[in-house]
Amino acid sequence: MIQIDLSGAQKFFTKAGPDYAAASRAHEMLTSGSGLGADFTGWLKLPKAILDTELDRIVAAAEKIRSRSGALVVIGIGGSYLGARGAIELLRPVPGKGDPEVFFVGNGLSADAFCDTLEKLGDRDFDVNVISKSGTTLEPAVAFRIFRELLKKKYGAAADEHIFATTDARRGVLKTLADSNGWESFVVPDDVGGRFSIFSAVGLLPMAVAGIDIRRVIDAAIREFDALDLRSSENPAWQYAAARQNLCSKGFGVEILGCYEPSFRFMAEWWKQLYGESEGKDNKGIFPASVEFTADLHSMGQYIQEGPRNLMESVVRFRRSRYSCPVPNSEDNADGLNYLSGRDLAEICGVAADAVREAHIDGGVPNLVISCSARDEEGLAELVCFFELACALSGYMSGVNPFDQPGVEAYKKNMFRMLGKPGAV
Amino acid sequence: MIQIDLSGAQKFFTKAGPDYAAASRAHEMLTSGSGLGADFTGWLKLPKAILDTELDRIVAAAEKIRSRSGALVVIGIGGSYLGARGAIELLRPVPGKGDPEVFFVGNGLSADAFCDTLEKLGDRDFDVNVISKSGTTLEPAVAFRIFRELLKKKYGAAADEHIFATTDARRGVLKTLADSNGWESFVVPDDVGGRFSIFSAVGLLPMAVAGIDIRRVIDAAIREFDALDLRSSENPAWQYAAARQNLCSKGFGVEILGCYEPSFRFMAEWWKQLYGESEGKDNKGIFPASVEFTADLHSMGQYIQEGPRNLMESVVRFRRSRYSCPVPNSEDNADGLNYLSGRDLAEICGVAADAVREAHIDGGVPNLVISCSARDEEGLAELVCFFELACALSGYMSGVNPFDQPGVEAYKKNMFRMLGKPGAV
Repeated sequence: MIQIDLSGAQKFFTKAGPDYAAASRAHEMLTSGSGLGADFTGWLKLPKAILDTELDRIVAAAEKIRSRSGALVVIGIGGSYLGARGAIELLRPVPGKGDPEVFFVGNGLSADAFCDTLEKLGDRDFDVNVISKSGTTLEPAVAFRIFRELLKKKYGAAADEHIFATTDARRGVLKTLADSNGWESFVVPDDVGGRFSIFSAVGLLPMAVAGIDIRRVIDAAIREFDALDLRSSENPAWQYAAARQNLCSKGFGVEILGCYEPSFRFMAEWWKQLYGESEGKDNKGIFPASVEFTADLHSMGQYIQEGPRNLMESVVRFRRSRYSCPVPNSEDNADGLNYLSGRDLAEICGVAADAVREAHIDGGVPNLVISCSARDEEGLAELVCFFELACALSGYMSGVNPFDQPGVEAYKKNMFRMLGKPGAV
Repeated sequence: MIQIDLSGAQKFFTKAGPDYAAASRAHEMLTSGSGLGADFTGWLKLPKAILDTELDRIVAAAEKIRSRSGALVVIGIGGSYLGARGAIELLRPVPGKGDPEVFFVGNGLSADAFCDTLEKLGDRDFDVNVISKSGTTLEPAVAFRIFRELLKKKYGAAADEHIFATTDARRGVLKTLADSNGWESFVVPDDVGGRFSIFSAVGLLPMAVAGIDIRRVIDAAIREFDALDLRSSENPAWQYAAARQNLCSKGFGVEILGCYEPSFRFMAEWWKQLYGESEGKDNKGIFPASVEFTADLHSMGQYIQEGPRNLMESVVRFRRSRYSCPVPNSEDNADGLNYLSGRDLAEICGVAADAVREAHIDGGVPNLVISCSARDEEGLAELVCFFELACALSGYMSGVNPFDQPGVEAYKKNMFRMLGKPGAV
């Protein structure tokens, strides 16, 4: 279960404090379907829905891939890759023995990055999971065309057995291709936007291939969403949403998400999409940035401590560490570190986090601490449910539709025209 | 040679435009040593200085490591690791055949990350490069203590031959340890701060071990710094510094550094330290953030296009691509991409970059394009020289000392007290 500590933000709030009445109204709008973008709120029931529909088939497909391939190539961009990548880097930063390596392509247009990935892939057996609601997004479509060629060269007529398509249930270019070629396919639900889709096949198939126990993830997500349905100011999602909006109204327009685990890096990228794309519209929105502590205390630390005072800081902590790593004793103590001998790195890291929190609050940076149980399947589910719900509430509280992304079309329109796509204007 | 294009920022400037007279004064302060922090401006002459002093010995040490080890463990934090990591990920994202893998530790306190790195290291032969001016910074000191134990277990009496210390020339805990144990050591220059130290042994030894031709880097850096000594508004460093300060005065307080090469990720981290730590003080400074395009167009793209209008965007482009990657033709054209058949991904990416630029400018985001020759040794040198010089100028123009970092001490003081370090208060 997620816990949140707002005490480090208390002195920065307006006199009235976080507006829990507004959080309550937002929660009601969300669950009653009376708010903007109500057609895209299926993510709230996604863990239960997937359990009843595709979960067994996702697990079976993952087992098939794990049993025959040394790698899975995931083709997708935005919400079609950030969740899986974040989860896999957090929980499996080093592939376990026998786990296929998961590569992410089709999330950019760099020829160099594409060729580098091919080199890393080498001559391993591999499968492809192409993820796209429509099949027309340029980046994944181009990468998929190249990988279909590679599969045909490698596997001949059996190439089609190595393709798994996660796409619309009924229509679109990719669905048509999947049906006509007999690819096993999974559904991108109609009522779930990309950035909220981690608990669908979009996130779950790559996670399962990487060795993550997705049944544990889904069970924990069902419990967490149930717990987060609490209608009171004790709800951590209400607290996070209301605290952010309160601080934003006081001029804290940049939020830094920090974590002391380097493996959290791509979960922070997932978080940036979730909040940036949901809230950044109508000239509104808190700018989402991320830092990796303690590394970035020796980088962005100076700015956080003494730069312009428009930053708020949210720090994700794991209440249990996976490994223990005691500091060895030294007979001559030449480095002067014997005061730490026998103490675990995880304990020292916890003290450092407390020290940083105190320093940043003293420096004028409101601090929120968000903690989950551990760096495991349950902890992942807790974080995802919490951040998704709080994002929806925070978006409604600021008056925007948290479920659309109209601004993403602007560059695409220019690009298709400049590339000379038939019919583009 | 670096080229910069300010045309996408033109309509956002103040009526008076970028203040090149102020850039000129800042440049004069820097080179005459009359500005704040003048004792820390040795980086301007570092490429020439290293050529005359340690370069041959760095190359020889790197050859020794490359000939006997499958990995180099670099222990350092902040400026003692970001430059090397950025350069290696940019130029050698996949280790070449026979190149040792370079691991970075001691830049955080996560027990999990530490243990994950040990697992990746496995039973390979390895060397250690410990980088610390003083030797007392907690993160690298703890990691080094643990790695000294590992080396002793693995190599016994020969362990000392596997340690290379990059530290103060004369004093400090690490220098004392190096001298008494006979470790080969290299110098962290007195007149160069960590974030400006990439062209010293701090950056060069790990880069050389990874297979980067550091003589080519240094030769190019000497040429680039010479070219950037130009005293006119044609100087791209003047243009970048003056444009940033002008836009900042108009309320554009967040700068997003974007790049279309995923391998640039850690160069962007290096850039964040350079600008964040140099400018973020006295309640001043532009907030430095980074994005990876095109991936993040499907993430932060919405916010950039339609969020609050306080963002400026600087985009790094490489004028040549390393690989070519043509889009294959498809007989049935089921995916509708045949209008791209035979065209190279690099060309398509360039068109996308132009399309994005146009969309973002239309959306109200000033755009600067910074281009270097290629993703190679010369390109790296060009970028580093340009960003370092422009940072110093920009800092002086905003009235701060760009070469100190007083705020970094705040958390350390708390931490040593809370950990019970002898003598800490």
